[in-house]
Order: sequence, then structure tokens, then C-alpha cells
Amino acid sequence: MADAMSRRIRMTLGEETCDLAVTHVHVVDVLNCDVIRDATVLVGEGVVLAVLSDIAHHDICSRELVDGGGRFLIPGLTDAHIHIESTMLTPDRFAAAVLPLGTTRVVADPHEIANVAGIAGLRYMLDAGRRLPLHMHMALPSCVPCTPFEDAGATLTADELRPFMNDPSVCSLGEVMNYPGVMACDAGLLDKIEAAVTNGLVVDGHCPTLRDRQLAAYAGCGVGNDHECSTPEGMRAKIAAGMYVFIRHGSAASSLERLLPGVTPGNARRCCLCTDDMHAGDILRHGHVNHVVARAVALGLAAPVAVSMATLNPARAYGFNRVGAIAPGYCADFCLVDDLKDFHMAAVWCSGQKVAEQGRLLVDLPCVPVPETLCSSMHVEGFSEEKLRIPLQSRRARVISIQPGSLETEERVMDIATTGEGDFSSELNPGLCKIAVIERHKGSGRVGLGILAGYAKAGTKLGGAIATSISHDSHNIVVAGSNDADMAAAVRLVCAMKGGIALVRGGRAVAQQPLPVGGLMSPEDAVEVARLNESVNAAAAGLSVSEDVDPVVTLAFMSLCVIPSVKVSTKGLFDVDGWRFVDIEVR
Amino acid sequence: MADAMSRRIRMTLGEETCDLAVTHVHVVDVLNCDVIRDATVLVGEGVVLAVLSDIAHHDICSRELVDGGGRFLIPGLTDAHIHIESTMLTPDRFAAAVLPLGTTRVVADPHEIANVAGIAGLRYMLDAGRRLPLHMHMALPSCVPCTPFEDAGATLTADELRPFMNDPSVCSLGEVMNYPGVMACDAGLLDKIEAAVTNGLVVDGHCPTLRDRQLAAYAGCGVGNDHECSTPEGMRAKIAAGMYVFIRHGSAASSLERLLPGVTPGNARRCCLCTDDMHAGDILRHGHVNHVVARAVALGLAAPVAVSMATLNPARAYGFNRVGAIAPGYCADFCLVDDLKDFHMAAVWCSGQKVAEQGRLLVDLPCVPVPETLCSSMHVEGFSEEKLRIPLQSRRARVISIQPGSLETEERVMDIATTGEGDFSSELNPGLCKIAVIERHKGSGRVGLGILAGYAKAGTKLGGAIATSISHDSHNIVVAGSNDADMAAAVRLVCAMKGGIALVRGGRAVAQQPLPVGGLMSPEDAVEVARLNESVNAAAAGLSVSEDVDPVVTLAFMSLCVIPSVKVSTKGLFDVDGWRFVDIEVR
Repeated sequence: MADAMSRRIRMTLGEETCDLAVTHVHVVDVLNCDVIRDATVLVGEGVVLAVLSDIAHHDICSRELVDGGGRFLIPGLTDAHIHIESTMLTPDRFAAAVLPLGTTRVVADPHEIANVAGIAGLRYMLDAGRRLPLHMHMALPSCVPCTPFEDAGATLTADELRPFMNDPSVCSLGEVMNYPGVMACDAGLLDKIEAAVTNGLVVDGHCPTLRDRQLAAYAGCGVGNDHECSTPEGMRAKIAAGMYVFIRHGSAASSLERLLPGVTPGNARRCCLCTDDMHAGDILRHGHVNHVVARAVALGLAAPVAVSMATLNPARAYGFNRVGAIAPGYCADFCLVDDLKDFHMAAVWCSGQKVAEQGRLLVDLPCVPVPETLCSSMHVEGFSEEKLRIPLQSRRARVISIQPGSLETEERVMDIATTGEGDFSSELNPGLCKIAVIERHKGSGRVGLGILAGYAKAGTKLGGAIATSISHDSHNIVVAGSNDADMAAAVRLVCAMKGGIALVRGGRAVAQQPLPVGGLMSPEDAVEVARLNESVNAAAAGLSVSEDVDPVVTLAFMSLCVIPSVKVSTKGLFDVDGWRFVDIEVR
Repeated sequence: MADAMSRRIRMTLGEETCDLAVTHVHVVDVLNCDVIRDATVLVGEGVVLAVLSDIAHHDICSRELVDGGGRFLIPGLTDAHIHIESTMLTPDRFAAAVLPLGTTRVVADPHEIANVAGIAGLRYMLDAGRRLPLHMHMALPSCVPCTPFEDAGATLTADELRPFMNDPSVCSLGEVMNYPGVMACDAGLLDKIEAAVTNGLVVDGHCPTLRDRQLAAYAGCGVGNDHECSTPEGMRAKIAAGMYVFIRHGSAASSLERLLPGVTPGNARRCCLCTDDMHAGDILRHGHVNHVVARAVALGLAAPVAVSMATLNPARAYGFNRVGAIAPGYCADFCLVDDLKDFHMAAVWCSGQKVAEQGRLLVDLPCVPVPETLCSSMHVEGFSEEKLRIPLQSRRARVISIQPGSLETEERVMDIATTGEGDFSSELNPGLCKIAVIERHKGSGRVGLGILAGYAKAGTKLGGAIATSISHDSHNIVVAGSNDADMAAAVRLVCAMKGGIALVRGGRAVAQQPLPVGGLMSPEDAVEVARLNESVNAAAAGLSVSEDVDPVVTLAFMSLCVIPSVKVSTKGLFDVDGWRFVDIEVR
């Protein structure tokens, strides 16, 4: 390897031919937060050799010459925190979608697939990531299952995670969402944190509301970042507590506009950008990290600072050495952009290899075979329409009321009209519909039920049923519908597709999106996934879903028992504020 | 250890009594580069637990309470690069001197003692450092010997250094001064760099003049910092090349004033402060890192930024985790200062223990025994007055001309008056004196000779001889004098003291400073070392040394064969520019 060093030295000095020279570019220097104008970048053996100003053309001795044409060269972009499963794309299809957009590195938290398939899911993501030209770092999910109140497909303990902690692709323990567990000194959780810290991993955070002593206790355990800030004050408090703040701008949530006023010259280095969750359609329409950087610049952040928050800063937050800048010895990941405004990618290089040009992928991505166990993850047994009945003798019920534009819900106690058999029926209660969560990992036959307000358009009834095997975080099958027959049919269709999203009306499938990889991802490419997803969403509108909610995404979050106030799991209706199960019926 | 984590969580939440609470302080928050006003800092088990605003006094549950009295609390200061040997103090005496000044952490490069005693010297410094309350990180000297043109006491190859690379106290490969060796792909040198990089160590730099391709080749090898910048432009170029810039303000050299204009909000995070070389007397008179920070603030740098450059930034440059800020989980090193101007230390804590108050050390430092081999490092054999003769048949000679205020010299060819025997004599050549370098490591009997201009006052002759066993970087005995008898006597006196500095006039010792630890350091404390050193310097003035030079320090650098233009080693007169030995006599 000292031979490799010698060779790089000689290439840098011009004594040997280097691999690539990009001439006539303005290089965004994220180390000084400045621009080096009219430079030539030399590359050899996958790393940047030199950024030279005032170099004569005849002094360049390179196998390949690229004329940058006076455009800008920025370091390859990093998504500091993403759940790839939210794109519904497999890692290779994801890479194919984002590499042309300048994303050369991601920190992926395979929390969703791990909740379905445990170690097998984790291993698939690691294997797939390793074979891609995109640098894929992995977080080891810390919260599988998310709560003890649901049926997940797996349980990951410290002992199960430990063997992965020395994998070179693994960079962190995934977001510690169970912050109440930290406060309560939950032994299993602290074991995981302890193991991560001991193995030199970063510990990722998720602590929307913590402050003062609780924030200090959380950060003091070694939690190194948070992507759940919502105010500049909260952001500064988290930075002061030693955490990197990841400013999120994804499909479901964005804090960019709210947080940017809190970014100062003094703390910008402790800020990164991330998407967290982004749908394939949004990636195709708007872009990926390049879109986030462009938004930040549009909102007034200086371009080199915005770029540093998606390059050098995440590298520093995760301790990736020689990554995130265009500087000697740094990994040669960079993008040629037309300007520092739209961040439209003219060309993208990863480890010195040109991987995309004008939005077109130039490399063949290895098709990573999906293990069979991940493709047969639907284990529903003993399910029947009968299990969807909600008897209500008192004709009063706790209803889950969706708050428009939010994943939070409220509990409402309502008078309910019932059928002759004394059951709840959507037909009789316009504006309400039934929701069910069907256990699908172990064939336990468990079904949790609830009544939902705010999902169907006000005063109407849903025109059928919508079911999805994406339901956070345990990813059982969640289904909402106007009648039990359509609901049951939708569930069966999801099972038949080995996972996915199904809309059924009057017994007939009106739209469907297969997600056979763990019931979360599709083997199709981003264009096809986005197309199908749009058709599903369009069909949902025809089922009279309220315009204030995303028909599939909102449904998928109705089972997440850590977001207030009332949710439904396979085990029944859950009062998040009270941290206990409650009856639907109010007597 | 998860038990320790639980305990820290409970202390942070106020459920258990913590160890220390410092109330009523304004905390310098180097993570936001801001000040948190009126805060309380909780400490437990050696780490900061929390920084709390608005906490009621009765809510504090702590074994010890310190009222900060509205003063400022800053993180403990770090010297990012220092050769402790230059203080002439042993590590324990050094710690005793600088802890009360707020220095709680240093990166020490034991390059001087390693040139004398090799691995034994390195091991002594490591052993001593480990036992101190001050955090002492160690660089493994990369350039022993400095050049092949001198007789050092040891040679350190990659194979000899490798076993130390996993020592938890070792943080880096010491400054790679042999940058021409990098350009020439010197195999032995690249082996050391390679080994350091592979073992996750930082590689320290020293590259005053490098730019463009050469700078890129040097940085590209993994060299992570440089403390030899002299212009803002050079500084920005080095930062752009991925290096941290250490801004130096020491006894011998300061670039603070020149470089501060180059520090911007965009690159401040890549800047650190260091002293490199600082004499005991200067530490006692002015302070240590606190003095450097105060100077930076006086020159206009915002105080939190200046503090970050001596705390968080060096921690980031060396990858010290949870170090350099007052934040949860960070090592509880901090200082109570009266203001953010003078940085006078009211009290200093290291790992949560109060180690100093109002300049007074509160802890007993372990007296680390110096190994016998380090205390008998003078191995001069076959030396006699006769060896100092410089015959000059041609009566023309190359003279080493000292440049005032610089360590650089110029070669001057002069007509020389000679004795009846045809030898050079200072008596006959006012303004000139003789210089000799006597090999003292292996008893080889080698003596290198030269003629020096600019050391004696212009037009006068030296009134005797000055000898020192500090002579960079090989630390043989360098002696300058007006006559051979006094020179020989001074050399003998240095040997008799087992190393040190000796002034002899008319055969009688007029001043002497014993440095028996490797011929470089004294076992005495800083006050005594500074006192003796001042007496030596005062006596030197009486010997008619030019006021433009430091009598001892300048002499000690006349043997450093990497600083232009002409120097003298044990092997003779060396033409640095021509990289070869030359004759004194010009025919």
C-alpha cells in the first residue's frame, strides 16, 4: 500500500499519468466554505489527487480529460439519515434513482425491513449496499420492535446486533426512538447503546420533545445526532448538548424552513441535511439531497455552507475519514452542477468513476438477489371477515380522530349507530370508517380494531377498502374500509401479492401495488414504483378519502404506537398518552 | 458499564446525587460558538452531566457545590502541538506549571528526547504522561534522525514505531518534517506514514513552503495538519487541502498576528492554536494556551471562536471523542475564568477534579522516576582542544552568517586572518567566532567545525565560550567561543553536568544550567528552571553575544541541517540548499 501511496504522489506531482482531470471548474471548497475558481481537479486510484489553480493545459498528464466548461464542482452529496424502504425501492433501484441526482453516499437505517425480517432483513440491506457504487453506510436499528405493544416480525437485542458492529458498512446504532426507555434506564436498550459506544459507533437520536435534564441524560449516553428538531431554540439546545442536528426535508415532513434561521456561522458545522423518508415519486419529481440543498439556498443559506451540510458535516458527524470534500486524498465523489442554485447535475462521479450524466445512469448496477425469506413475509393465518366485527352494546365508542396534516391523532368519544346485530357499521355512520391491523408475521390470527374519523371525506362513507402491508413500525397489514367484505378482500389481495397496497371496491380490485420484498419494497425501478403509487393514490381519491390526508401514508402511521394520542395495533386500541390498551366501547 | 450509564442518567435527572455542581456561570458553548448565560453545570463520574439554565437552587442535588459567582466557564484548554522538552521541564513539572493556567490536554511530540534516547525516551514520556491528571496525548516522532547528515542518538523506523501505534496515549505520527522525502517517495518515510494511517492515527505535518502539486502530494498522503503557515493565503490553501491549520504562538515563533486575518466563519473550525516551543520562563510570565487565546481575542477574534480553536477544534483534528466542550457526556475538563479577555484562571478542573485554584496547584503530581539511561546520555570520547583547530591555508573561508531575528543563515565567503600555525582564530577576526558540534551519543569522537558571523557583537570577540547539549535535532553538544581552551572547558562542563548549558570565561565557569534528563530537561520545577535559564542568558550577554540573537536558542539551531542556508553538524559544514557537505576553506 506504500506502493499505492508512491504512485499517488508521482501522479500528483505530474511524474505519472493520472486517471482523470476535470478542468475549468469552480470547485466548492467546503473546508473553507468558499469557491476555488478556475481550477483543475486531478484524480487517481479513486481519490482526489489535487485541486490546482493556474495550471497550464499542457501540464496536465491524464488518461481522461473532462472540460468542466466553467461549471461548478461540488462534493458528492450525502443523505445523513434515510429509511430506503420508504421509497419502496430496493437498495439497488434506490441507488439507480439517486446517483444521477448527485447522491453518492447515504446513511441508511433499515429499521422497517428489520421490523419485518430481523437479522435477515439487515443482512440483505448490508449485502445489497456493499455491492453498489453508491457508498451505503448502515445504522443498526435500535428499536425492533418499536414498543412491546405490537407484533413485530423480529426482536433485535444487543446480543443479536453485536456481531454486526464491526462490519465496515455499519456506522451507527439506529435512531433511539425509545427515549422514555433511556430515562427509565431500560437495561436492554442501554445494553445496545453501551455496545455501540464501546464499538466506536455513533448512536443516532430521535427525540422531538426532550429538553433540559432529559435532553442532557439522553445526549450524555452518547447519542450523537437528532433529526426531530422543530424550532431554532430546540436546535441550538441540541447542538449545545453535543448533538449534530440533522435538518430534515422529506416527503412526509420538513423542518428546513423553520430551522434555517437557527443556523449561524458558529454552529453551521454541527448541522447536516437529511430526508428521513422520501417517496420514489418525489425523488423523480424534485430530486433527492440536491433538492434539499437547493431549497436551503433558496431560503437564504450561502451555497458553500448548504453544500457543506450535505457533504463534509455528515462525514464529520459519522467520522467518515477523507470523505465529503474535494481535497487531496479524499474519496473522489463529486458532481458537476450548472449553478449553485438549482443543483441540476450535469455529471456525477463516485470513487473517481463517472456514474451518471445529465440524469442518465452510466453504470450497470448489480441486481442483488432478494433472499427467499424476505419474499415470503406474509404469514396471515386464521383471518376471516368475522374478525372485523366491532360489537358496541353501549353505542358509544372511542374514535381515532386524524388531525389534518399531522401524524398525531386525538381520541374522541362518540355516539355510534349500530346494525341489527349491534355492530359498528360505516354505512350507518357517515364520516367514520373501520380500521383493522392484521398480524402478518407469525400467523397468530390476531386482529386489532378501531374506528377512524377524518379518513373518509366529512359526512361521506369510504367507497371500499384500502389495505397496506406498510404499517409503522411493525408492518402488519393495516386496512380501512366502508365494509367488512371489501376490507377482507383487500387484506387477501395484499397477501396474494406477498405484500403491497390494495384498493377494493364492491369486491373488485381497483388498484394495487405489489411490494413483495418484505411487504415494503418493490423489485421494480423508481419510474414504475412511482407510477403504480400514483395510480393507487388516484384510485384512493375515488374511494372518497379525505383530501387532508395521504390515503396510504396516513393509514400506515395509524399503527405507530409512539405518536400521540391514540393508535391501533394488532393487540387493540392503544392510548399512547396513557401508555396502555383501551376498549373501543365506552360504557 | 451500562450500570455506569444508568447511574449517570439518574444523576442527570436529579434522581441521584451528582458529584459536583458549578452554579451561576456563563458557559462558553464552543459547539454553537456562543455563551449560555446563568447556567449550572452538573458533573458526575468525571464527565459533564448537564448544562442547565433556569435551575432552582433547591433542585440541585450534588455532593459539592461551587458558586461560580457570575464568572465564565470555558472548556479545559488544549495545546495542539508542543515539544515539552523545549520547556526544559520533565512532563510532571510541565503539568504542574500549565494545569493552573487551564491547560488540561496537550498533544506532545517527544521528538527531542527521541533523537537522544530513541524508544527509551519515547517510553519515558508515555509513562510519565499516563500518570498525570493532565491528559497527555503523544505523537510518535517521524523524523529520527532528522536528516542522514548528522549523528543522532537513535534511529526510529516504521518497525520500531509500529508497536506503539495502538497505545491509547498515542494519537499521531509526529510532524513529517522531511517533506522532500515525501516528494521523493522515500520508502522508509512512506512506511511510517502508511503504518500510521492504517492504525487510524493522525499524521502531523510541518511544511512551511509547500504549495500547489507538492502540497497536494503531501496532504494526499494523509497528513492532517500543519503548524508552519506564515500567510493567510498559505493557510487557506492548506485548509482547502484538507489539513487543519495550527496557528502557532510560542517563545521562538508566532504566526498569530499574521494568520488571524485568514480565519473566517467558514474555516474557523479547521483552525487550532498551539505553542510548539515555549520556555518555562515565558509560561510563568505570560501563561500557556490561555495566553495564546487571550492574544487571539486581543487581536479581534470573537472569544467563543478563539476558545473553540483551543478546545473543540483540536479534539476534532485528532478525533478525541467527547472532549473539548462543556456538554453532556464530555470529559469534565473546564476552567473558571474571570473574563473572556485575560483568561486569568480562577479554578481549573480536570476529569471533574479540581486541580488548581488561583494559580495554585491543588493535586500532588506523581514524581515519575527518570530511567537511568536517560540520565547518562552524554557519551563523549576522544574529545580534545586539538580537535577544534581550523587550519586555513588559503586564508579564505565559508562563514555561517546568522540573520538577525531568524533561524536561517547565509553563507559568506570571507578573507580570514590566521595564526602563525595557519589556523583560524577568533582573536584575530573580530565579529567572528568558532562553532563546533561534538558528537555525544556514541562516543565516535566526531567534531564538526565552522566559523560564525553575527553571534558575537559586531566588531568584538566573544568573551569566552557557550556550550549546550540542546542542539536541534540530534542534540549533540554545540559550542561557540572565542578560544579553544574555553570552548573545550565548556564542553567538559556540559558533560560533567550530564547535559546542560555552560558558559566559561578564562577557564572559569561563569554560569551553568544542568539538564541531566537526556541533556534536554531538568528535574527541577518551572520556577527554578526559568531562574537558571535567565541567569545563563544574562551571563551570555556579559560574554558579548549580539543583542540580535538569543545566546542559547540561536546556537541550538545552528546544527539543524534542514533550515537554510548553511549549518554545521558533527560531520562538518553543511550546505542546506545544496543538500551536501562543504569545506570551510575556500581555495
